[in-house]
Amino acid sequence: MNPFKEYFIKGQQNKDEGHLFSDSWLQEWRKSINKSESYSKQAAAWNIPLILLFKPLPDFFKSKNSVGIYLDLRSGTCTELRYAVSDDIETNCVVLSASEKSWLQLLQSGKNPTLFLLNGKLKLEKGSKTLLVSNAGAAKALLDAAPSNSGDQIPNVSEQESNIGNNRPTSEPHERFSTVTKGLDFESFPMKLFQKAKIYGVWNPSDISFEKDRSDWKNMSADEQTIIMHLSSLFLAGEEAVTLDLLPLIRVIAKEGRIEEEIYITSFLWEEAKHTEFFARFVMEVIKTQPDADRFHGPFYKKLFYEKLPQALSALDHDRSPAVQLRASATYNMIVEGTLAETGYEAYYKMLDDHDLMPGLREGVLKLKQDESRHIAYGLWLINRILEENEDLHPSFENLLDELLTDATNIIHEIFDRYDTVPFGLEEEWFLDYAIKQFQHRMEKLKLNN
Amino acid sequence: MNPFKEYFIKGQQNKDEGHLFSDSWLQEWRKSINKSESYSKQAAAWNIPLILLFKPLPDFFKSKNSVGIYLDLRSGTCTELRYAVSDDIETNCVVLSASEKSWLQLLQSGKNPTLFLLNGKLKLEKGSKTLLVSNAGAAKALLDAAPSNSGDQIPNVSEQESNIGNNRPTSEPHERFSTVTKGLDFESFPMKLFQKAKIYGVWNPSDISFEKDRSDWKNMSADEQTIIMHLSSLFLAGEEAVTLDLLPLIRVIAKEGRIEEEIYITSFLWEEAKHTEFFARFVMEVIKTQPDADRFHGPFYKKLFYEKLPQALSALDHDRSPAVQLRASATYNMIVEGTLAETGYEAYYKMLDDHDLMPGLREGVLKLKQDESRHIAYGLWLINRILEENEDLHPSFENLLDELLTDATNIIHEIFDRYDTVPFGLEEEWFLDYAIKQFQHRMEKLKLNN
Ligand SMILES: [Fe+2]
Ligand SMILES: [Fe+2]
Ligand SMILES: [Fe+2]
Ligand SMILES: [Fe+2]
Repeated sequence: MNPFKEYFIKGQQNKDEGHLFSDSWLQEWRKSINKSESYSKQAAAWNIPLILLFKPLPDFFKSKNSVGIYLDLRSGTCTELRYAVSDDIETNCVVLSASEKSWLQLLQSGKNPTLFLLNGKLKLEKGSKTLLVSNAGAAKALLDAAPSNSGDQIPNVSEQESNIGNNRPTSEPHERFSTVTKGLDFESFPMKLFQKAKIYGVWNPSDISFEKDRSDWKNMSADEQTIIMHLSSLFLAGEEAVTLDLLPLIRVIAKEGRIEEEIYITSFLWEEAKHTEFFARFVMEVIKTQPDADRFHGPFYKKLFYEKLPQALSALDHDRSPAVQLRASATYNMIVEGTLAETGYEAYYKMLDDHDLMPGLREGVLKLKQDESRHIAYGLWLINRILEENEDLHPSFENLLDELLTDATNIIHEIFDRYDTVPFGLEEEWFLDYAIKQFQHRMEKLKLNN
Repeated sequence: MNPFKEYFIKGQQNKDEGHLFSDSWLQEWRKSINKSESYSKQAAAWNIPLILLFKPLPDFFKSKNSVGIYLDLRSGTCTELRYAVSDDIETNCVVLSASEKSWLQLLQSGKNPTLFLLNGKLKLEKGSKTLLVSNAGAAKALLDAAPSNSGDQIPNVSEQESNIGNNRPTSEPHERFSTVTKGLDFESFPMKLFQKAKIYGVWNPSDISFEKDRSDWKNMSADEQTIIMHLSSLFLAGEEAVTLDLLPLIRVIAKEGRIEEEIYITSFLWEEAKHTEFFARFVMEVIKTQPDADRFHGPFYKKLFYEKLPQALSALDHDRSPAVQLRASATYNMIVEGTLAETGYEAYYKMLDDHDLMPGLREGVLKLKQDESRHIAYGLWLINRILEENEDLHPSFENLLDELLTDATNIIHEIFDRYDTVPFGLEEEWFLDYAIKQFQHRMEKLKLNN
């Protein structure tokens, strides 16, 4: 038989039949509650009747002289389910009210009663909110048992969607927490660096005034402006790169359960973010434009900062082996920080210090240098930790260092290659020599068996 | 013929033959240099003879009245390669010296000349170090061309090992840098939070004195000590958990190129590390022991902090979809920070404030609360950013919130369940109510279409 016709005939036989809150619907709900394993389990200790008021009161309820629905609930079963009368409100202690639309939403779409309570769609006229929220599981089972008007046609949204963001095999729980089982080793080198970071690394780039820097900028020759912009564009990308690329390393350290090291690296990362902010502010507020600032990034610079550095670090996502960690740290700490950045700071000084130019920029660079000295110290300590445990990697690590030093010196060549005469009297020879000395200082601290 | 016998016969014919630095070996080297494509390419501009001195001088060189080896190098070729005499030192401008052992290492194992120069095994007696380092590629090609004494028997260590930590397909380069191409958006909500973090989030847990806390601790009853230790052990693991579990989220934000957000989250992460330090210090310096501190972690606590939280966040490693991000942030920011931590702080106050106990602990908790308010503000902003772009996820997100609120209230039950009478007059009802209110405040800020 045509279902529409069936409905029509039923409606003729009994005009309530087919209405969502008809008497037969109420009885169906009661039976369904009593068949629900979930309800009998979760509501085993619940012995309080519920009154569900409909506000504003729909005509249907008015026609029954009713204000809503009454459920008597005992030890995980529903002993009575009927239309509520206004007297029920006085004589019972848990009374909930909602609009018909909200009740429909609750009953039909598996929406959650606690949330409705919290967002005000469901109002607790009488009773303890905490009590209800604590029994949210039972309340949900109660509502889930309600027969839907449209029967099987409404998909069970709840079942299908409660897995939001959770539709994959779970993984990576914590076995234990270091601080709980053994505390923190405050005497360890990383914790000592962390103590320093909390004192010397809390400077605020936004506090630095660029007022004189701006007027100095205006008084510079076009060539001088170019070299300042050139160097700043290298630092801008460089600081952003290290802010991004440190993340895989900190993750590996965390996964290895080295909580003291992770704690230190959080300060390291925060400082890199501030360095990025510092150069961004300088470029935006002093140079005031960054039209194609990456035109200053030559092939060797791009090779290192756009490719080798992010690749050396992101390789840790898939491979935490000591060799991969060594490449990551050597690229990041020895070359980018320990050789190139250090040389770059010196370039700013050479250009600006003698003529007392751009005091804001120089002040920031001084702070940056302090921060970097801790980053490099951690990097060398990390490399030594790995080298000590992996003597077999020493020869290949030396080859890697050489490869990276070549990358660094190529970048310095590339910078000077753009100028016939470099403004501020900068000389390539001096900078190459300075970079190599920086590198040498770092290398002397490594525990390599030669 | 047996190779050993061949060598023996050769040795009989000419006693130099077979010695590493024999005259025929030198000629072989020269031929090999002139066949090297790598050398002809990299040394095309090099026109300076090299003197390689052996110090101390081996008998073999003495017997030749020689101090080492002379190489005349022109435009990528070697025009002469012979024993050097002492006069060569005076008349040439690049003179290198090393022990026989170091020269052997350099010539045989593909070790790198630049590193030998930097670590002092190779000494530059005359000439510019920078010049040599700049031509490291040419120098390496020169050495690589040297015929090895043991011929093919020595594996080419260099080729095999220079790939340290690099034996996988490269991936994830940077396409561009935000700060270079468009600067930073200082007006964005995350950058404004970052500005606040740099002012209010730089407190140092190590500056807080626990002197009075220690004497207060001694004067507490055993029951009072138990509840303080109980709560602190929940915070200890909780702060360590969030310090560890934030990492996958910050990575996702960075990969999505949201540099302003990443910059803010670095301060967030740094603050969590300081919170971990704070509770670790408190437990170590006041309670002075953490014997089985995890005995306070009940099944519901463990479910959330040992499993659901790390899993919700680490799921981002494999799936950055909006649904997974929503689960991560709801679990981390709405429930762990916004509901449970807030309620825990209140518990410390309820216990300690009235009797002016443990001022150090309270001072730290006050600072923590300030930090957390920024963390929660970011979390809500992030959730709203995702909800606005993904309206289809609203219904399932509401279900998730309810699931998580149930997790939170279960944990509060579980805590109070351990006590017949809770010290300091704490009441479960009050805390459940407080937790739900906290949650409700967060929920009211979400842009959910109901
Ligand atoms: Fe930096
Ligand atoms: Fe750095
Ligand atoms: Fe925290
Ligand atoms: Fe937090």
